[in-house]
This record gives sequence, C-alpha cells and structure tokens, in this order.
Amino acid sequence: MDFKVIEIKKSVFENNDREADKLREELKENKTFLLNLMSSPGSGKTTTLKAVLSRLKEEYKIGVMEADIDSDVDAKTISDTGVQAIQLHTGGMCHLDAGMTKQGLDSIDANDFDFIVLENVGNLVCPAEFDTGSSKNAMILSVPEGDDKPLKYPLMFTISDVVLINKIDTKSVFEFDDDAVVERIKRLNPKADIFFISARTGEGVDAFCDWLKKEIDEWNA
Amino acid sequence: MDFKVIEIKKSVFENNDREADKLREELKENKTFLLNLMSSPGSGKTTTLKAVLSRLKEEYKIGVMEADIDSDVDAKTISDTGVQAIQLHTGGMCHLDAGMTKQGLDSIDANDFDFIVLENVGNLVCPAEFDTGSSKNAMILSVPEGDDKPLKYPLMFTISDVVLINKIDTKSVFEFDDDAVVERIKRLNPKADIFFISARTGEGVDAFCDWLKKEIDEWNA
Repeated sequence: MDFKVIEIKKSVFENNDREADKLREELKENKTFLLNLMSSPGSGKTTTLKAVLSRLKEEYKIGVMEADIDSDVDAKTISDTGVQAIQLHTGGMCHLDAGMTKQGLDSIDANDFDFIVLENVGNLVCPAEFDTGSSKNAMILSVPEGDDKPLKYPLMFTISDVVLINKIDTKSVFEFDDDAVVERIKRLNPKADIFFISARTGEGVDAFCDWLKKEIDEWNA
Repeated sequence: MDFKVIEIKKSVFENNDREADKLREELKENKTFLLNLMSSPGSGKTTTLKAVLSRLKEEYKIGVMEADIDSDVDAKTISDTGVQAIQLHTGGMCHLDAGMTKQGLDSIDANDFDFIVLENVGNLVCPAEFDTGSSKNAMILSVPEGDDKPLKYPLMFTISDVVLINKIDTKSVFEFDDDAVVERIKRLNPKADIFFISARTGEGVDAFCDWLKKEIDEWNA
C-alpha cells in the first residue's frame, strides 16, 4: 500500500490548549476517535501498533499518522499491513501540537475513519507538554528502559490515560520491578490504566484492545 | 557522599553557539575536559558512567553533573561511588544549552577537575540541537532500542564524536544488526568512533576508557 509524506509546518496558533479543545470537539462530532501514542525512541510504538491493527482492522476503519523527524520507516511498516498510513515529517521539531495534528488529520481525510492513531515523535519530554487534541493519550514504557522512569519523566506519566509496559518477554535479562513501577505510576496518576504486554509475542495485547474498543465505542456513540 | 541540587534557570544569551565556543575556550585554558553524554531515556547513561568512573577515578579528578527534569536518582547513584556529583534540575526543559551548562560548572567549581561529565536529559531530539560547550559529545544507543535509530534521529548521530552501543549482553532477546547500525552511523558521520559495550558486564568498557584517556590527555596537555 502507498502512503503520503506530509511536511508539517510550525503552528501559528498562540493558544494551543484552545486549538486542542476545538479539534477534540470536531473529532467527537465526526465520530472519530484519536489516540495519541507516545514513548521513548525504541520502546515499540510501531510494533505495538501493528499488533493492535491486526486485531481491530476488520472492526473499525483505521488510519495511522506516523510522526518522525525525518525517515519514512514507520509509515512503510504500517501501510504494509494494509492499513492507511501517512508519514508526518516534523522537520526537527520534538513534538506535535494541536495545529500540527490538524494538518495531519486534514491530509488523511479524518472524517473517513472511526479510529486514528497519531504515533508521536519518540521523546518522553516535549510531547507531554502539548495537547494534540486527541481523545485519549497512551504511552509505552518498555522493560529495558527501567522501572525508575516515572520518577524521571513525571509529566508524561501524569497526562497519559493508559500506560503500556512493553517487552515483558525480555524480563529474564533485565531487573524490572512490576510492583514498583505500578506504584510509581499510580502515585502520579491514580486513574491511569496499566497493561503489561509484549507486542512481539502478543501477550496482553487482547486486554489492551478491549480497553481500546470500549473507549472507541463510547467516543463514537 | 552528599550532593548539591541546582535549579537551572533558562539561559538569557541570544547566541548559544558563541556562548558555547567561549565556554569551550575557558575549559581548555583551565585544563578541564567536559564530556556531554546523551541518549534516550533508559539507554544506560548512568550505568555506563559508573563503569567508567570505577576505571578512571584513581587517574583523574572527576566531577559529574546529572541533568534531570525532576528527580535526584542519578546524582545519588554517582555520589555513592565516591565521585563528586551535582544534580541539575532543568524544570521541564528538554535539553541543556551552554548557559545552563555554565551554571552547573560554576556550582561544581569546574577548575578543580581534570574531567567532568555532563549527563544530559534523556532525549534523542533536543539535546542534539544545542551545543553545550563540551570538549566532546558522546551518545549511547542501546540494543533494545533497535538498529534503525540513526535513520530516525539523524542529528544526534551526526553531532556525536563517539557512539556507544550498550546492552550487548541482551542481544539474544533482540534482533539487532551490528553491521547495519555501523553503516547507518558512518553514513551520517564518517568520523564517529563506535564502541560496542555492556555497562553491566563491563565488556568493551576498557576500550572506551582508552579512547577517553587519549581525549582527556590531549585536551589537558
């Protein structure tokens, strides 16, 4: 499957929060659920997404917006699964805001979809500071990164509605304390839903997809 | 060992490159080698640093500046090794520039040291865009992050004098192509020195320390 590449321009809006709320209202009216997916580089955003798409693509009309500073690697991976993808190039910018997200949504014809995923730039700092206008925020922390990350990047864990702990199939070679990480996340964000998954083996992915289906169906009702 | 915590203020300088060059000249005059160490969250900056300190702390007077958005975890880890450390809190900022680095150097009394390490904020995007005034830039890519990272975060690989590929002891559970990553790094940055290491087992750390000793001795000659 082919995919478009969009060069995103810097936003001109002064008040990002206002633009984000406006975008969220439009998405709600059009019955399009937008998930903002964030993580460090290499935590497995694209692999997780592939595992989710294979489970949900018969049920929903799904589109994917892959944000990256430069390459087209991820949009190619996703469009190879048969799901419509576009690549957003941020031109060195370390995050997406609502205006930039809107540029992507206009390019993919957002109204055609029930469910759109925005794969944000790999970064635990800046994306946490900018509301993209998404319906929900999801983040991935992978086991190799360590269970201390909520202490060091607190805002990202605070603003995420759901936290996926990925690469649990590699636990034998890392020291990672499940209870400690849950306790640290819950201290920052008591309402966060937490799923332990392996995008590679599929373990735990069904439970996360059940969460997603519930959220999508509520949003699009 | 105790450590100070410094709340870093936003820099007031308009021209960061000029400030960085000025800082580098001062460091050279004072015979202090400053290494700017960068990576994604959880790539093993602090563990690598511990492995390096245990090998070099008898030979050089070493100081460490740990930059973090919020926590004091890393400065505590380093000061427990007996090496003088300070914690720089960036207050949400995603990188350090030369002015912020200078605030840290003034707090640690930089002139007292042969070798200072600045552990930058865990982030592959923003720190690459700001010259800190360091003598050399080092970055860590860990095996779990994947061999495609030079394609996706090209600037970081372009501005680094040395690239450490860390966590090679976990290769059995990840697909990681050594030749491909070297080829991708060299295409961006033909002069980059590359070392494969495991900070945890110590494999490859001696070779990196030899590189460091040569660089420190040349700088401080």
